[in-house]
Amino acid sequence: MSPARIDFKNGKVELRHGGGGRSSARLIDQLFLRYFDHPQLRLQNDQAIFSPPPGRLVISTDGHVVSPLFFPGGDIGGLAVHGTVNDVAMAGARPLYLTAGFILEEGLELAVLERIVASMAQAAGLAGAPIITGDTKVVERGKGDGVFITTTGIGVAAAGVNISAERAAPGCAILLSGSIGDHGMAIMAERADLPFRSQIQSDSAALHTLVEAMLQAAGPAIRCLRDPTRGGLASALNELARQSKTGMRIVESLIPVKPAVRAACEILGLDPLHVANEGKLICICDAEAAETLLAAMRRHPLGREAAIIGQVSADPHGFVEMQTVFGGRRIVDWLSGDQLPRIC
Amino acid sequence: MSPARIDFKNGKVELRHGGGGRSSARLIDQLFLRYFDHPQLRLQNDQAIFSPPPGRLVISTDGHVVSPLFFPGGDIGGLAVHGTVNDVAMAGARPLYLTAGFILEEGLELAVLERIVASMAQAAGLAGAPIITGDTKVVERGKGDGVFITTTGIGVAAAGVNISAERAAPGCAILLSGSIGDHGMAIMAERADLPFRSQIQSDSAALHTLVEAMLQAAGPAIRCLRDPTRGGLASALNELARQSKTGMRIVESLIPVKPAVRAACEILGLDPLHVANEGKLICICDAEAAETLLAAMRRHPLGREAAIIGQVSADPHGFVEMQTVFGGRRIVDWLSGDQLPRIC
Repeated sequence: MSPARIDFKNGKVELRHGGGGRSSARLIDQLFLRYFDHPQLRLQNDQAIFSPPPGRLVISTDGHVVSPLFFPGGDIGGLAVHGTVNDVAMAGARPLYLTAGFILEEGLELAVLERIVASMAQAAGLAGAPIITGDTKVVERGKGDGVFITTTGIGVAAAGVNISAERAAPGCAILLSGSIGDHGMAIMAERADLPFRSQIQSDSAALHTLVEAMLQAAGPAIRCLRDPTRGGLASALNELARQSKTGMRIVESLIPVKPAVRAACEILGLDPLHVANEGKLICICDAEAAETLLAAMRRHPLGREAAIIGQVSADPHGFVEMQTVFGGRRIVDWLSGDQLPRIC
Repeated sequence: MSPARIDFKNGKVELRHGGGGRSSARLIDQLFLRYFDHPQLRLQNDQAIFSPPPGRLVISTDGHVVSPLFFPGGDIGGLAVHGTVNDVAMAGARPLYLTAGFILEEGLELAVLERIVASMAQAAGLAGAPIITGDTKVVERGKGDGVFITTTGIGVAAAGVNISAERAAPGCAILLSGSIGDHGMAIMAERADLPFRSQIQSDSAALHTLVEAMLQAAGPAIRCLRDPTRGGLASALNELARQSKTGMRIVESLIPVKPAVRAACEILGLDPLHVANEGKLICICDAEAAETLLAAMRRHPLGREAAIIGQVSADPHGFVEMQTVFGGRRIVDWLSGDQLPRIC
């Protein structure tokens, strides 16, 4: 194959880049192999082979369609790595490998794609989870939206780790690793062009080292982990309640919300409890271990603002109930509308 | 959560189905869980856990953006399973599990989505590779095209299997499992509304049992396997030549092409060598084992028309050369244009 150089400065994605022929091969060589450099990728087979370490394996898949592609604190590339690494980590597993499937829209600037791929490569490197195989498709102008990225992650869970939604039980403590709403409001403030939008940064981050620190501090006491992404803290707690057939009682004043995020939520009529996070986790653990876990979380850079926000209750209806800052109680429902599309 | 029924007969995909709240949960419960029924999915965690059998693991990811969604001989759902199962099988591995990431366009009819999900479930069942985790996103009308599906497959390769593109060597035989161009021309004939389009059926099929039969017949002799999808036989052979730094010599008269496929190619100005297949494989093997493998392939329903179509040559330039039906020789190049977009 002739080594014709793709013009990454002025070029655009064309349909032929997804045709499976020469142009596809050039895009793989000059972009994906360059940034995702890995022996398995260099073999250019349609799959990757690996020998897993002993233990149960964890697999997770997440599609990313966030708009805009770049936002304060991150971009779709980093998000596509963090989202999947976190879903793997939420089973208490150490991420091993990633795969990436790109769906590109004809006309996307190659310079934009390159920035995104560079960001993915950096995030994957930091997460210690190389991208070892992938795929690229191109759709016609107006049939996509720049780039969609679906990542799959594989991780390994140590023996004795037993983390699953249905294990929440009455009396357990509910911990939250930090402030809520940062990611979703970074996107929404950008879309709404709010004047103070630069004060709100996405919290997009890989949480596997925080999880590792928590497992070391009190592994057997951890029953559930979940990252409250789409649908926010409210939906994640409702999911956990439904799956474990328990109730959840939380205290509003204990839930950290940054002032700028709160202000943006008020302007846009959103409840921070419904707004997505991409670098936070909920942990449900045995009550006796809550303080130990909290201390371990606070020692980690991604858990400095961690808090115990409530406890699991006996409630076959699975309600999430919140003691408000005004002293009353209200039911915290699932996100029910469509006011936050394409947040991740 | 209230058990409100989604109207799969008249309903449409709405943005809220991707919001991560109540509507998302209902779609998962009433559609994906119903068809993909699996204990890991029922746990409704954001990931699946499995204990792999001993051996090296194979992983592959493929995005599917085929248009139209339904075509003679298949649909995007079956294709999304077959494409990934085949990429796993092309490493000589037995498929174990699949994951699925859906990107839905607002306004897609839920009845259409249900047909596609049913087709995926059936294909995954036949392949013995259940879908154990997944994700759904929704994009606004005009920012997608009905449905895109990215699947990831995990499989296990037995000890001693050593199949990789760079292992092709001069003197090896090149086998092809059947006629070429069926899938791509089924799509193109449908799009072009050709009068005899009903005679052309996609060959979309899972090839793992064919590979298993081949491994049993002459496993150690198999050096490369590749399914000639996008870019067709021509691009797949060029890829193998490039990766192994060899040449490929094939004989046109030995390559099966169905008469209707050939006729459609002539009308549309396409070369069947460049047209995608979704149920065929190329095998490069030690010459001594070629007849044994051919016989094993022909005994399998998906290899009845298998043929030895040429041999690997010593050629550092990596040319694919074909002896034509007219007795001449020509270079078979990669697909270079964009005349076959969104074929898979």
